Amino acid sequence: MTTEMSSPSDYGYVNQITLRWKDNDVYGHVNNVEYYSFFDTVINAFLIVEAGLDIHAGSTIGLCAESHCNFMAPVAFPDTVTAGLRVAHLGNSSVRYELALFDGGGVPIAEGWFVHVFVDRGTRRASPIPPSLRAKLEELGP
Amino acid sequence: MTTEMSSPSDYGYVNQITLRWKDNDVYGHVNNVEYYSFFDTVINAFLIVEAGLDIHAGSTIGLCAESHCNFMAPVAFPDTVTAGLRVAHLGNSSVRYELALFDGGGVPIAEGWFVHVFVDRGTRRASPIPPSLRAKLEELGP
Amino acid sequence: MTTEMSSPSDYGYVNQITLRWKDNDVYGHVNNVEYYSFFDTVINAFLIVEAGLDIHAGSTIGLCAESHCNFMAPVAFPDTVTAGLRVAHLGNSSVRYELALFDGGGVPIAEGWFVHVFVDRGTRRASPIPPSLRAKLEELGP
Amino acid sequence: MTTEMSSPSDYGYVNQITLRWKDNDVYGHVNNVEYYSFFDTVINAFLIVEAGLDIHAGSTIGLCAESHCNFMAPVAFPDTVTAGLRVAHLGNSSVRYELALFDGGGVPIAEGWFVHVFVDRGTRRASPIPPSLRAKLEELGP
Repeated sequence: MTTEMSSPSDYGYVNQITLRWKDNDVYGHVNNVEYYSFFDTVINAFLIVEAGLDIHAGSTIGLCAESHCNFMAPVAFPDTVTAGLRVAHLGNSSVRYELALFDGGGVPIAEGWFVHVFVDRGTRRASPIPPSLRAKLEELGP
Repeated sequence: MTTEMSSPSDYGYVNQITLRWKDNDVYGHVNNVEYYSFFDTVINAFLIVEAGLDIHAGSTIGLCAESHCNFMAPVAFPDTVTAGLRVAHLGNSSVRYELALFDGGGVPIAEGWFVHVFVDRGTRRASPIPPSLRAKLEELGP
Repeated sequence: MTTEMSSPSDYGYVNQITLRWKDNDVYGHVNNVEYYSFFDTVINAFLIVEAGLDIHAGSTIGLCAESHCNFMAPVAFPDTVTAGLRVAHLGNSSVRYELALFDGGGVPIAEGWFVHVFVDRGTRRASPIPPSLRAKLEELGP
Repeated sequence: MTTEMSSPSDYGYVNQITLRWKDNDVYGHVNNVEYYSFFDTVINAFLIVEAGLDIHAGSTIGLCAESHCNFMAPVAFPDTVTAGLRVAHLGNSSVRYELALFDGGGVPIAEGWFVHVFVDRGTRRASPIPPSLRAKLEELGP
């Protein structure tokens, strides 16, 4: 999937995620679905904490248009996951993120990407990314 | 994303999934992560109910190697989702599924794909798909 | 935990809930946490579908103040759960529900209760249950 | 619900839990169901990390028989939760835990309890708590 192993330092924003008991499925490891929740979490942490997105009342919200994950290694509770985020492409009203997950020992466990389309909260139609948010996304950019 | 709208009849195996209150996120619709749980659910329902996979004691288990989803329309609790499953490619020890999700009115809300690699439960190394399972997967095939 | 086995007919409102692959935990059965999601789901299905609660814009919303569950038997995906709901006590701004869960064969798997306090969406202070909602809750009452 | 506010120092074992985007529900705060996942997580973290429970192959496993939560205040992603655990009663094959959750500012957001019955992994019949596990539970005891 990658010729070179990535590391958290390849990603401009990094978040620690603690695993939960019920993340583990019947086969004893974190279920594939939860990896997307880790993607969703690091993205929204960045948007809220770093870029000032107001999820409760802001006029612009981000909706997922497409996502993808390559699963490279298992991880299991009670480990901790490090999620890395960077921006691969920034359009007028959309952004394509690249993401990677690492286990507690720094081993890459997944890589993926995720497209957010920003829309008006009321009409749910595509809306230009607000300037302050765009400036922050550019800092994570290619 | 598609030039023609798909329908459940394009998929050889179909499952009804009832939504849950906490599927809805802050923005009032089912969170993107749950769509992958619906994929996971229809796949494993087929493997267990139709193809006889023994998740508790069988010697072969399926692990997700890669997955993808295009999100086409929102859906919200208390609606119901129909998940459709078919086989796009069947290898020696892996299978690539194509999936689609429809809301309670039959509107396509997502399309995606998912690769299962079958492995030995103990060693977690790739293992040929058992003949009885392969026969069932072929019935869903291209 | 109960001297007599309950049945869905002891509950005025009943909902079918389909299980999902990731509901099963390491021990092969639905994780205890999900039982509360089934409670939450049948309650909100009743409030939205039967009693007209507007979760997106209504001025009154229901917040959980207390909940409890006795776990009586396991259940596992790909089974289906029937959730039963009745009203045990209806106050000015709160309601205490009683709930039961049954597996696909009708065997009781859990009993519990759940207290909703209705609050103003903006101030989050306790607010009288709106008359139309109260009338519906009374129909499920003791 | 309590006459005195509790603090993490009232609990012998404490765990940090990072919140996730989809923990927030339509009303903008962590859904009530997730609180039980935080209980489940701190309990199993203690059992695995501190008390040596082998969730994959050990002969004894813990099943939830009863749980309860009083919800005292909301919390929302991207905050962090501190979960505190202590043992209220230790029987021959069961243990009753008391739990509390605190937000990132140390405010108590919930208190509850949870009963684990230890059973033989194969027969799922009640089994005495193994001595090494019992010794660790006693350290959290009343």
